[in-house]
Amino acid sequence: MYGYIGSLKAKPGHRDEVVSLLLRGAEGLRAHGCESYVVATSNSDDDTIWVTEVWQSEQHHAASLELPETRKTIAEAMPLLTGEFTKQETSVAGGLGV
Amino acid sequence: MYGYIGSLKAKPGHRDEVVSLLLRGAEGLRAHGCESYVVATSNSDDDTIWVTEVWQSEQHHAASLELPETRKTIAEAMPLLTGEFTKQETSVAGGLGV
Repeated sequence: MYGYIGSLKAKPGHRDEVVSLLLRGAEGLRAHGCESYVVATSNSDDDTIWVTEVWQSEQHHAASLELPETRKTIAEAMPLLTGEFTKQETSVAGGLGV
Repeated sequence: MYGYIGSLKAKPGHRDEVVSLLLRGAEGLRAHGCESYVVATSNSDDDTIWVTEVWQSEQHHAASLELPETRKTIAEAMPLLTGEFTKQETSVAGGLGV
């Protein structure tokens, strides 16, 4: 399984709006090979959002980025973001809930 | 819900042994308020392990660290680690699988 741990930073005051956008359609990802998708806000600053994902494969994740609903979400979220991102790609070994 | 995103670094050659230790007893965490616990290895270096967790509350997570089985795992893993850790604490907004 492929794992993705990313952070993105919202412009001041727009964090919760971005979180709502990211959560829209989360349940639908399962049909596209997503095993887990968690959206969270940082406890240490007011603007950082963390997204952690587990997919059946890297290809499933890549394909999901091309879905019309994903592209729409990205297009809506981008103007609300500062452009500061971090990203970690992993190989998921196992755990609880995956 | 409380989220934890942590990385730890194994001494060269010991990564898979640490992963096995971290996965031991993962299923049992559910009874202690854990919603998700994912152990993964970095795709960009040979020694880094990422652990992402979702708990019903920060208190549940803190209490889990005092469980005898957790303390045993930590004691066994520590000599295999370099001591380099990162940690992010979050408030989980939602998603798929939580």
